[in-house]
Amino acid sequence: MGPEICRRIDELAAISESPDHLTRIFLSAEQRLASDLVLGWMRDAGMAAHVDTIGNVIGRYEGARPGLPALVLGSHLDTVRDAGKYDGMLGVITAIACVAELNRAGRRLDFAITVIGFSDEEGVRFGTTMLGSEAVAGTFDFGRLDRVDGSGLTMAQAMRAYGLDPGRIGDAAMRREDVLAYVEFHIEQGPVLEGWGLAVGCVTSISGATRYEVTIGGEAGHAGTVPMTARKDALAAAAECILAIETRCAGEPGLVGTVGLIEARPGAINVIPGSVLFTIDIRAPEDIPRLAATQDVLRQLDAIAAKRGVTLTARKIYDMAATPCAPWLMSQVDAAIAGEGITPFHLPSGAGHDGMAMIAIADIGMIFLRCAKGISHNPAEAITVGDADTGARVLLRFIENFRAPA
Amino acid sequence: MGPEICRRIDELAAISESPDHLTRIFLSAEQRLASDLVLGWMRDAGMAAHVDTIGNVIGRYEGARPGLPALVLGSHLDTVRDAGKYDGMLGVITAIACVAELNRAGRRLDFAITVIGFSDEEGVRFGTTMLGSEAVAGTFDFGRLDRVDGSGLTMAQAMRAYGLDPGRIGDAAMRREDVLAYVEFHIEQGPVLEGWGLAVGCVTSISGATRYEVTIGGEAGHAGTVPMTARKDALAAAAECILAIETRCAGEPGLVGTVGLIEARPGAINVIPGSVLFTIDIRAPEDIPRLAATQDVLRQLDAIAAKRGVTLTARKIYDMAATPCAPWLMSQVDAAIAGEGITPFHLPSGAGHDGMAMIAIADIGMIFLRCAKGISHNPAEAITVGDADTGARVLLRFIENFRAPA
Repeated sequence: MGPEICRRIDELAAISESPDHLTRIFLSAEQRLASDLVLGWMRDAGMAAHVDTIGNVIGRYEGARPGLPALVLGSHLDTVRDAGKYDGMLGVITAIACVAELNRAGRRLDFAITVIGFSDEEGVRFGTTMLGSEAVAGTFDFGRLDRVDGSGLTMAQAMRAYGLDPGRIGDAAMRREDVLAYVEFHIEQGPVLEGWGLAVGCVTSISGATRYEVTIGGEAGHAGTVPMTARKDALAAAAECILAIETRCAGEPGLVGTVGLIEARPGAINVIPGSVLFTIDIRAPEDIPRLAATQDVLRQLDAIAAKRGVTLTARKIYDMAATPCAPWLMSQVDAAIAGEGITPFHLPSGAGHDGMAMIAIADIGMIFLRCAKGISHNPAEAITVGDADTGARVLLRFIENFRAPA
Repeated sequence: MGPEICRRIDELAAISESPDHLTRIFLSAEQRLASDLVLGWMRDAGMAAHVDTIGNVIGRYEGARPGLPALVLGSHLDTVRDAGKYDGMLGVITAIACVAELNRAGRRLDFAITVIGFSDEEGVRFGTTMLGSEAVAGTFDFGRLDRVDGSGLTMAQAMRAYGLDPGRIGDAAMRREDVLAYVEFHIEQGPVLEGWGLAVGCVTSISGATRYEVTIGGEAGHAGTVPMTARKDALAAAAECILAIETRCAGEPGLVGTVGLIEARPGAINVIPGSVLFTIDIRAPEDIPRLAATQDVLRQLDAIAAKRGVTLTARKIYDMAATPCAPWLMSQVDAAIAGEGITPFHLPSGAGHDGMAMIAIADIGMIFLRCAKGISHNPAEAITVGDADTGARVLLRFIENFRAPA
């Protein structure tokens, strides 16, 4: 299956808002092109396929008889800016490849298989992640429809422009009794499997994450005429905050803290920045270290603002507890890995995944695939064709032997 | 004189390309209207007035006998976009008001007085400043005639459309032997005089400025999966640079350093920034402290980059030496200030002014007027009528007692 999976990865990766790099955001023209491609692959694999009311691509492969509860497999089809081509897409393409194998063999199982290509996991356009999986899990927050993108368009407006009705997002929700489990196949996006020389691994839990949007209000002024002592430079204050976050989060293994986005206004070479907005993303495999670090960081930011005489508002925009994978799914994943002659290996996921939303309606499991140097969210993201094949065989074996608990 | 000066400020401010805000750019229909208004005021003040070959408005008040060398007073009549109404205009109007006082009293001095309203200082239209004063100083760079404005018109074309012949710009040049000094009256555009409770101050020099564009290359990565110890976070590196710049430039009075613009890429909440671009603007009233600070800053930036394993490129994009005010003019300005019962106070000009061009043909001096909160290049720019009056009296006293060195 490896070569075909990698060909399809390249086909999807060619659908980008720029020929120079891969960027495919929620409700874009590129999403529509990618969806059409994936719908075709699903149908070729014997699935009934459609786009749901939040833009997810859904394919269903019926079991031994129509209407059986489904093992749900999936990942996302959107990307970060200047992305790698495996993050998300690999899981969707590999799941389709597995169903295609079953279909070629004419095999029907005791359960249906649903493959989902989620429309938004990265959250690039509206700064809020997992819109697709939250809609499927029935936990979509309708307050988010008012969020605006970089061009000032609200999510509701963007949905209508795309041909979706925001009033019908609820229709995307699946029912717990129809979902036997949610299992995602994904590149590790970290260096652990490569370090151990293993192609695949079984995920134990997804790290919790806390995100803040911080706004600093200083005083804009002429870069030449305001003495250093009279300044309320919002960017200098932000710089001190960024270093405080870095220092605090470097203090404990497993804990990570990132400022990924920053905007300084008015943003001219000869004007002291009057206001700065930046984001904080803090993660840890367990909840208590994450919450303690968050509290410490916020306290330090307040102290920095007070010392500099600037205002600082920290708005929590995301908070997700660590999401454990279900032990019964982990043992079936382990068995599938062992069945391919590989030592089962357990590792946490430092990255967020759609399982964090899907756990609202189902137990979750994840299979990680080794990626080069742990690089992700970067055009240098890479896997080997051999690993793609191994991973697909593990997933197929997992599906074929899947048993829901009694 | 204060009330009339403020009335005229409002008359000039009404001449704008938009009724909503004040914007008056080089060679615009609004420049012509403003020039006509100022020509009228000059003639009312007893001056012979004309528009020169670069569009400057020139008024001459003869001394005790015709053809004497002139004390040149002036400032600019163009504005930034969405400007305040005092920047530039106040200096022209106040100089005319002083001449009008002399004329009313029938006084002729041992020298002529030339008042100039420069046609372009801000450089909004062609992205190049001080076109008017450079033409008067005989340093106009004819290569600039090919520069294009936002609509694709070259400067040469715009001049012809305005009725000016680019081939005759050289005629605008004044000769050194005809100019005793160039003295400009201007709002401070900074908070220093207000901080000291002084209406006026004597400028020591116009700060030189060095500008760099810095690019940091790190490694983009997933905000959840790359351990803190394995990161090459370009934004964290930039933050350390920003604080190093702030710390170094806060170490000496007069020296200022600003990072006004920053862009972190790819710029997503969950991605470690892989590259950052930011600007540095370092100014000081004297060249040696500015150059020393610049050297120190660049050395520190290199050290930060080396320590963090990121690349750093600093490209110099602007470098202008400081323009010192002449001590003999400063002592006459001090005397005029003291004569009005105000403690003479010295301060540098962090902003650029036409004196930077005029120094090519004359010693220069500047008198600063207090402005509210140091705000400039902003509609909130403000002075009081009382201060306008005080400033005009200081300028008039300076003119009446002016003595060129033997």
